[in-house]
Amino acid sequence: MSACTATFHPDNKKIEVPRGTDILNAAITAGVYITSSCGGEGVCGRCKVIVKNGTIRSEPTGRLTKEEVKKGYVLACHSTIHSNVDVEVPPASRLEKQQILTEEVKADRLFGVFSSAQEVEKGIEVEERVAFKHSPLATKFFLKLPPPTLEDNISDLERLYREIRRKVETHIIQTGLANVKKIGRLLRESRWEVTVLLGKRNGTTEVVLIEPGDTSNRNFGVALDIGTTTIVAQLVDLNSRKTLGTKATHNRQASYGEDVITRMIYAGKQAGLEKLHHVVIDTINELISSLANESNISLSEITGVMCAGNMTMTHLLLRVDPTYIRRSPYVPTANFMPVIRAAEAGIKINPRGLLACLPGISSYVGADITAGVIASGIDEAKEVSMLIDIGTNGEIVLGNKEWLTCCSSSAGPAFEGSGVRSGVRAMEGAIQEVEIDPKNYEVKYSTIGGVKAVGICGSGYIDILAELLKAKIVDRSGKIDSNLKTKRIREGEEGLEFVVACPERSRRAEDIVITQVDIINLIRSKGAMYTAAHILVNKMNLKLKDIDKIYLAGGFGNYLNIEKSIWIGLLPDLDRKKFEFIGNSSLTGAKFSLLSYDAMAKTREIARKMTYIELSVDPAFMNEYSASLFLPHTDIAAFPTVMKELSLK
Amino acid sequence: MSACTATFHPDNKKIEVPRGTDILNAAITAGVYITSSCGGEGVCGRCKVIVKNGTIRSEPTGRLTKEEVKKGYVLACHSTIHSNVDVEVPPASRLEKQQILTEEVKADRLFGVFSSAQEVEKGIEVEERVAFKHSPLATKFFLKLPPPTLEDNISDLERLYREIRRKVETHIIQTGLANVKKIGRLLRESRWEVTVLLGKRNGTTEVVLIEPGDTSNRNFGVALDIGTTTIVAQLVDLNSRKTLGTKATHNRQASYGEDVITRMIYAGKQAGLEKLHHVVIDTINELISSLANESNISLSEITGVMCAGNMTMTHLLLRVDPTYIRRSPYVPTANFMPVIRAAEAGIKINPRGLLACLPGISSYVGADITAGVIASGIDEAKEVSMLIDIGTNGEIVLGNKEWLTCCSSSAGPAFEGSGVRSGVRAMEGAIQEVEIDPKNYEVKYSTIGGVKAVGICGSGYIDILAELLKAKIVDRSGKIDSNLKTKRIREGEEGLEFVVACPERSRRAEDIVITQVDIINLIRSKGAMYTAAHILVNKMNLKLKDIDKIYLAGGFGNYLNIEKSIWIGLLPDLDRKKFEFIGNSSLTGAKFSLLSYDAMAKTREIARKMTYIELSVDPAFMNEYSASLFLPHTDIAAFPTVMKELSLK
Repeated sequence: MSACTATFHPDNKKIEVPRGTDILNAAITAGVYITSSCGGEGVCGRCKVIVKNGTIRSEPTGRLTKEEVKKGYVLACHSTIHSNVDVEVPPASRLEKQQILTEEVKADRLFGVFSSAQEVEKGIEVEERVAFKHSPLATKFFLKLPPPTLEDNISDLERLYREIRRKVETHIIQTGLANVKKIGRLLRESRWEVTVLLGKRNGTTEVVLIEPGDTSNRNFGVALDIGTTTIVAQLVDLNSRKTLGTKATHNRQASYGEDVITRMIYAGKQAGLEKLHHVVIDTINELISSLANESNISLSEITGVMCAGNMTMTHLLLRVDPTYIRRSPYVPTANFMPVIRAAEAGIKINPRGLLACLPGISSYVGADITAGVIASGIDEAKEVSMLIDIGTNGEIVLGNKEWLTCCSSSAGPAFEGSGVRSGVRAMEGAIQEVEIDPKNYEVKYSTIGGVKAVGICGSGYIDILAELLKAKIVDRSGKIDSNLKTKRIREGEEGLEFVVACPERSRRAEDIVITQVDIINLIRSKGAMYTAAHILVNKMNLKLKDIDKIYLAGGFGNYLNIEKSIWIGLLPDLDRKKFEFIGNSSLTGAKFSLLSYDAMAKTREIARKMTYIELSVDPAFMNEYSASLFLPHTDIAAFPTVMKELSLK
Repeated sequence: MSACTATFHPDNKKIEVPRGTDILNAAITAGVYITSSCGGEGVCGRCKVIVKNGTIRSEPTGRLTKEEVKKGYVLACHSTIHSNVDVEVPPASRLEKQQILTEEVKADRLFGVFSSAQEVEKGIEVEERVAFKHSPLATKFFLKLPPPTLEDNISDLERLYREIRRKVETHIIQTGLANVKKIGRLLRESRWEVTVLLGKRNGTTEVVLIEPGDTSNRNFGVALDIGTTTIVAQLVDLNSRKTLGTKATHNRQASYGEDVITRMIYAGKQAGLEKLHHVVIDTINELISSLANESNISLSEITGVMCAGNMTMTHLLLRVDPTYIRRSPYVPTANFMPVIRAAEAGIKINPRGLLACLPGISSYVGADITAGVIASGIDEAKEVSMLIDIGTNGEIVLGNKEWLTCCSSSAGPAFEGSGVRSGVRAMEGAIQEVEIDPKNYEVKYSTIGGVKAVGICGSGYIDILAELLKAKIVDRSGKIDSNLKTKRIREGEEGLEFVVACPERSRRAEDIVITQVDIINLIRSKGAMYTAAHILVNKMNLKLKDIDKIYLAGGFGNYLNIEKSIWIGLLPDLDRKKFEFIGNSSLTGAKFSLLSYDAMAKTREIARKMTYIELSVDPAFMNEYSASLFLPHTDIAAFPTVMKELSLK
């Protein structure tokens, strides 16, 4: 088999691949990341590229418009390379810089140790939530051991343990043979002054490292939020609990499938699990290495990593087959993953450093949610609170200090910009805010980064839908009124559509529109979220109005317009003061657990205690869901402020 | 550097070595094991070989008699090879089949589970000692898991743990990532019927293995007694507790030094630790593999190994540098070694199988003694007992259920056949029993294996010394009476000597004699042992006669003549009924611990509780020791029966 060179533009990255390789895989090998929702099945039509020179063979697809075909677009996953080629990756197909949510609840406030009056004040401020004791996943202690004498001649290891027990309350201490082998010489060469790194490992304390002299002031950890779309890493000083830096990037697994289902299917293919595992590890290593660089920290000074991710992400991280998560009865292989050496998973920190994964609740309510619970403090509050994490799968938690319950809702990827005509993720150029003039139907919008529009992201769609309803361009069933006199309403390839932005103002190859089909998809998504919240509340014999607090979490949740979300019936019509954005609570929870074993223990308790409600088997679900497929809802009385504001009835 | 071929006879083993290699190392590489007490320092003079053909260069040595030099003897360690050579290894220089003690206390009796009336009776018989609960180092359980349903959809690992907790009371269960990775598929393919192997590991329970179906009836372990001279392995069925076979062989480390001190010095040389480690591991692997073969057991069915050895042996087994054991203040690197995978040390059983080492008490009172304590049951008895293990280092334990104390005595290697003119270890052809006619001084003797005499072993020396005293050939100070009219007393190279056997009756190159110097060495050895016992008893404000029971342990202890040992003052003059041979109690203790976690826990308790008395710093030691350098003792009144029997005064 002869080799061909593929050159990807605008990055100008070259790669030599065997003739017949598909463009998607060539791109991944070259380090060019192309969006792909379906994992190369040719179904999603998102991996559009333009072949400028060279010979390729493309399988027929219905995923490209006539216009696109004319312009030379092909699907990267369904086109194989048969000569040297030049491939242009258009902006909408790139995994690019996104508006990634790296903000998290100020962790420093929530820890019990305060040194100044000001800090004590802060501590009081948050005491309503919870304060965790400072006891990191990996802690360094400087020890001055009394040298052995004929009277005190216990073995070196026992001498070390004796000193450790003077500092730490611990039942079982373990040490691997590798450390045992070196302590004899090390203790003597360092004149009995050493620093030990103690790790919390599966309920025991491990002597992870022994270093000569006092290195206790240098000990760092990384909190990870491993999302299906985005990975966020935060470098933390394990002594001072200070955050030294936060970085985020795409989860490059996205090239193998946009959601967890397609990734799990891909994992089942030949070498699929390996690929998904390595690509996420590579991504994590790059983030960590870059963070360490910026803070002048050596990788060997990073001794612990704490991860929060959904169940599939956690499995892939550890190279555990996620197959059974997606097969009834939806059982993960392990929810409480063992604490291992990070090196065992391929993560490059200190070779003996630890990697811990927070536990989830069920196959579709993962550790990101457990982390969200400790970040929000729902489980410690007297009042009933709700945590909503909107994504492809929306997860909802309801509860208080007495009880916790949760469910998962297949909201679909519409709010993430997938399965909608002009949808993009929350990337630069995505339309995120929209207003429509009810008189002349003119559209005002803003994009992320203030650049030319390339498409519409989730928060943009919420605004558009709300504005279309308010301007009466769509009725309460979401139907576009074809009788209105405006050029913006027109017949497109898939039926009626409303033009949001025109080509001359956009870098995109075609007009940015919202179609009748898009609107139906969006209504289904918001309906699924609302129904899930509603049923969960009913299950507990409560009403939506009984909820005292609604925490909005996740990358998307932080940017949506609450008012407009209520207008379209995505969120319940409650006092706006009850809503609170809590940012990337998955990252916050991971950081809490990295810094406090109590927090980590709490996540285990939460994971055990929380009741998971499987909506798909609930008889009320279909009725409730059908009723929700209206704007804002069939039961308009449940939305009194919307009824009044939009003069609906 | 050109290569030479060395051929070793009578084995006819050939090896190619670089010119200039010494014969000792060439022999080791060829798999021919030559005795060497000093680790190749040229000091002990035990590695005598005869070079038949070829060119060698030998350094001068005072360790060969003129006669030997004439016959072509050289020291293997001090002769380098400079052409193809033929080397004859004479019997006395070979590490050959010895009278190795593989017998141990009948372990089956000491376990608490009895199935027949007869067994119950046996149980009562030994109830005075101690009964350990059956809970092996590694235990198999067959589990039928309820398959997951939508209602019961905890993760696979939690499902496994839930079932395990129904069978076993355990606080912390751990599982390595390797097992987590495979359980998803394994549980389903085996239709939720699996066998788990649970290991006791550093205070936690580990899921060591998960196998499809029911394999619980096949689970085996190995108990090891790793002696400085001899290694004994015993294959045990971990379910039935039956011993399937016992095999013993030389510790081939002996080629690098006969006692622990020379081995520790060798370990400090370039690659010395590696060599000592590998040679003991190779020996163990051969024993295990041979035992498994004979019982038709696959190595993968062996899941646990329990070792008892002295502190140096334990360190070398795990490749931990023993250097600090021999340097004041005599501190081992670790006394409580971590339980590891046997594979980590190179032992070939199931790749995930466990290796545990029993703890010792101090640098010179090792796990073999801790094992001896649980084998003898001293620590459970009301009466005061003593355990004596005679070797190069004699170890003595004194105590009862309330208290335990011990000491170590540098008896020297005389009773092991080293440092005495005609000394050999307890090998085939060794003189082991001797009678001397007090009238004509004629000697009757028997050898091990009934073959021609090659030398004298420890029990032979005790007999000879006792008989020389009884026949008044030596006086109470050990001095040979040169006035006696017998050809057996003559002037040798080192002064007066008594001829035990003549060359025509022996395969040895020279007469078998006991010299005046030998007698002095032997008296020092027995004196050191007696003094240690005496001081230990005095320390506890007791008299020797207060001891209710004396257990004699170890390879040598099992063959000595108690009566004659008392005559020479090696053992105290007590009621002969108080003495009991307990065989290889190190192996017995290891087997107990392999079969019962309670026994293993007990060894840890003993190791913590026992007081070690350092004799070398005791002011009474030198006085007591000097007094003991008489036959049987300066204080003849302490040996009333000897006084009467031998008409001494």
